[in-house]
Amino acid sequence: MVETKRKKIIIDTDPGIDDAMAIFVALQSPEVEVIGITTIYGNVYTTLATRNALHLLEIAGRSDIPVAEGSRVTITKGTKLRIADFVHGADGLGNQNFPPPQGKPIEESAAAFLVAQANLYAGEVTVVALGPLTNIALAVQLEPAFSKNIGQIVVLGGAFAMNGNVNPAAEANVFGDPDAADIVFTSGADVLCVGLNVTHQVVLTDADRDKLAQSNGRFAQYLCKILDVYFSYHHDACNMNGVYLHDPTAMLAAVVPSLFTYTEGVVRVQTSGITKGLTVLDNRKKRFDEVTGWTDKPTVKVAVAVDAPEVVKLVMQRLTDP
Amino acid sequence: MVETKRKKIIIDTDPGIDDAMAIFVALQSPEVEVIGITTIYGNVYTTLATRNALHLLEIAGRSDIPVAEGSRVTITKGTKLRIADFVHGADGLGNQNFPPPQGKPIEESAAAFLVAQANLYAGEVTVVALGPLTNIALAVQLEPAFSKNIGQIVVLGGAFAMNGNVNPAAEANVFGDPDAADIVFTSGADVLCVGLNVTHQVVLTDADRDKLAQSNGRFAQYLCKILDVYFSYHHDACNMNGVYLHDPTAMLAAVVPSLFTYTEGVVRVQTSGITKGLTVLDNRKKRFDEVTGWTDKPTVKVAVAVDAPEVVKLVMQRLTDP
Repeated sequence: MVETKRKKIIIDTDPGIDDAMAIFVALQSPEVEVIGITTIYGNVYTTLATRNALHLLEIAGRSDIPVAEGSRVTITKGTKLRIADFVHGADGLGNQNFPPPQGKPIEESAAAFLVAQANLYAGEVTVVALGPLTNIALAVQLEPAFSKNIGQIVVLGGAFAMNGNVNPAAEANVFGDPDAADIVFTSGADVLCVGLNVTHQVVLTDADRDKLAQSNGRFAQYLCKILDVYFSYHHDACNMNGVYLHDPTAMLAAVVPSLFTYTEGVVRVQTSGITKGLTVLDNRKKRFDEVTGWTDKPTVKVAVAVDAPEVVKLVMQRLTDP
Repeated sequence: MVETKRKKIIIDTDPGIDDAMAIFVALQSPEVEVIGITTIYGNVYTTLATRNALHLLEIAGRSDIPVAEGSRVTITKGTKLRIADFVHGADGLGNQNFPPPQGKPIEESAAAFLVAQANLYAGEVTVVALGPLTNIALAVQLEPAFSKNIGQIVVLGGAFAMNGNVNPAAEANVFGDPDAADIVFTSGADVLCVGLNVTHQVVLTDADRDKLAQSNGRFAQYLCKILDVYFSYHHDACNMNGVYLHDPTAMLAAVVPSLFTYTEGVVRVQTSGITKGLTVLDNRKKRFDEVTGWTDKPTVKVAVAVDAPEVVKLVMQRLTDP
């Protein structure tokens, strides 16, 4: 059997219950090789995100993977961090009071690590960004060549032609640092946005969760401990008997790209006011008469459709595998 | 035959080629009685809008209808007027150099006229607003009871879950005075928004235009003189062999409401930044965890579907009628 080259992946993450699922899916996916994790605030503060990332790698027996701690503050000025502890629990992992991890983050900052890896493996590294885009934007600012050196940036973020989840205008990750998102979207890098318009199609049901519980897989067993808080939130806030698979869906856009279709256009972010964090994709159907904020900016890819049953099936398979 | 009561309508307008069509459709509609026209900048400056409104009423032989001149400036601070002469011609009516009208506007301002009529016929007057919403917002500010006294405000404006027509974020009428639009949408009045998501479904084709030209109707004959510029713009900017019937569609939402279906929710307007003029409707599917700009605000109706063939058929009928 010919060994195909595995895609190198760095996960930028704020674990987070669905972040934990996405990290485990990546570690269980033969298509990819996780070469590092960088951490960011979002579901939890950055220091706790680092602790949780180290903890999850230890659960997976993969402490060999380096963790680089990211920014504790937004690029957007005057932004108070919005921490989604009401979705993921105070510890970000379902209020389970896990013991502290043994390992430590590397000395390099997340942005420096991203720049170094993109330089070392030019064109070969995919960043899967599961939180606010601060670290990625800092990498863009730190190294002008980053946007060309990085293979692809898969962003879990945005809400295209639909309401957000923080408020009617904005999706949480873009809302978390709107200026950072705008920097990344207009950086010229190969960016694929996986927004709420796609992730809201991918639901893990109560029945799926029961199957996870019945599995002997260690990842499934671990996840069933932490999923309660996440299911409760969706039940209360969204009136659902199930949960959105935001982060695992974005992860699979990197692992099995053929499950997604996308459009391409310029995306800009509103960075202030009542719709702060809102993403607007120019669908390029009209020639505007004035120069607009979208004129002559680099395009990005925006996921518009997903094979949702196949995503759920793959997530279930990889989480129940031994 | 029992005479049914005709709905009283005031048209707030910036004529404008499709405004001319909408005014003629209203004058030819037995369901409604046009009790006044108020003017606003948009397709042309306000003074020219007044001149064009008087001219169009003279063409129709309806100089009995009062015209009240509206605001020449936006409520939104620091906004340079955006005049769409590239869509409608320098004179707003297809560069036909019509002679000046005989009539004059009344002494009352548009806002004062709106307040007075809403007071005189409480609950019975429908305003059909075809331009930026400055006059209506001034009426709301002038008379706190206006939002209750006015029967309905049908607004041609907004772009819901789709790109705008001024830029990827904003529709022209809301962009023209975003603060005014936000005031009207949150005023508590019975507001029905007819946005681009609906008006882009209603196209008058080249073939329809040929039928207008072949008709003996005086309105059809007049319109065929002025339509060239409007068709050329759509051909160039939108790659269409036809034109959007924005204003006549909004007019028919007042005249024959059963042709439309709508949803209901809070609409807010972004009033600054790159997405200035963008409209966001809260679809109320999610309970947000924070107080948002949409929380506890009055709802409005937003048109989501239209019987487009029937709208085109009615517009054609009424414009070709003698």
